Amino acid sequence: MPKIGVVLSGCGFMDGAEIHEATLTLLYLDQAGADILCMAPDLDAIEVVDHARKEPTGEIRNVFSESGRIARGDLLDLATVRAENLDGLIFPGGFGAAKNLCDWAKNGPACTVHPDVERLIREMYDAGKPQGFICIAPVLAARILGEHGVRLTVGKDEATASAIGKTGAVHQSCEVDEVAVDMNARVVSTPAYMLGPSIAPVAKGVRKLVQQVLEWC
Amino acid sequence: MPKIGVVLSGCGFMDGAEIHEATLTLLYLDQAGADILCMAPDLDAIEVVDHARKEPTGEIRNVFSESGRIARGDLLDLATVRAENLDGLIFPGGFGAAKNLCDWAKNGPACTVHPDVERLIREMYDAGKPQGFICIAPVLAARILGEHGVRLTVGKDEATASAIGKTGAVHQSCEVDEVAVDMNARVVSTPAYMLGPSIAPVAKGVRKLVQQVLEWC
Repeated sequence: MPKIGVVLSGCGFMDGAEIHEATLTLLYLDQAGADILCMAPDLDAIEVVDHARKEPTGEIRNVFSESGRIARGDLLDLATVRAENLDGLIFPGGFGAAKNLCDWAKNGPACTVHPDVERLIREMYDAGKPQGFICIAPVLAARILGEHGVRLTVGKDEATASAIGKTGAVHQSCEVDEVAVDMNARVVSTPAYMLGPSIAPVAKGVRKLVQQVLEWC
Repeated sequence: MPKIGVVLSGCGFMDGAEIHEATLTLLYLDQAGADILCMAPDLDAIEVVDHARKEPTGEIRNVFSESGRIARGDLLDLATVRAENLDGLIFPGGFGAAKNLCDWAKNGPACTVHPDVERLIREMYDAGKPQGFICIAPVLAARILGEHGVRLTVGKDEATASAIGKTGAVHQSCEVDEVAVDMNARVVSTPAYMLGPSIAPVAKGVRKLVQQVLEWC
């Protein structure tokens, strides 16, 4: 059974991991018989947003604790995980990927990536192991692997695509049910809720992404 | 398109709606082309549990706000919804169903159900409209519809099955990928994470439950 890491960034698309994308990733991995290792960094979220009333709450919540909601309590501190523990790695989207795993939401292509996230992406790349990036999470791949000209997609958002280009990464326009595949870097990405508009089409893209990661294992 | 309500009780299985069960419900409804109306009561959760460290935090969180994380901000206050607005209704599980929608977790078969939850379940039953109950949520159907001898399942948990029997409801033992169907009451239930152990088998039961609800519409 391939061991696939799933990196969570909280719980809820406005301040953490996108719940549907994360759950669909777990569904398709489990259906394929993969061994799933959920993980998250142990840090405070940069903000908490009320998802019903759509406004910041001023609360402080811990990314590891909140990620445990999606992982049903079964997750690892990202700091303890090495590429040698994994056969593949997947990053669901949600603004947590651009707020908690890096500060792209504030600083764009000049962003700083959480040191353990950067380390693990580099380790996986150097080991030739596959990585999947969903929704806005490809900005992490762009920032770290842009120097290798990695090909990826965030759908059709021209502003984000243009910012991604500044990292050296190559943006590929995709529909919601498609994936962008970089065979050399072993990186696959899908637009998911960057395009939406609902869970059924998002699921098609996530399913293809999971299948591609497992094919490479 | 049938209009199907999905009643959320927070976000996370230890203190709210079970995230996988809720997301799978949305997935299969959307794949079938249903019109989805997420909803939740506007009240404080009776407790907040850190899902990674597995201990109460002492925080106060609002059930409507937290449910918005699963519903991606698109949800209604349960108090505003009537059976006439719906063709079917589904309750995902998670302890939120037994802590926030009623106090079964504390008082068992003598529990009190949130008044709007009780009203909507009765309205749906009286209108002959289908309802689906997942995981621990069938205790709501037992408490409200036990007087009609409703048939339902929570899997194979003997203590909960016995408590359900005290309401007048009839418990049916089921595997995780099965559903219990009460044709007269138009109530369908599935054990989901009452049995688990992982998302793929849970998905099979939730898929059957959604299909049954839609067949009745």
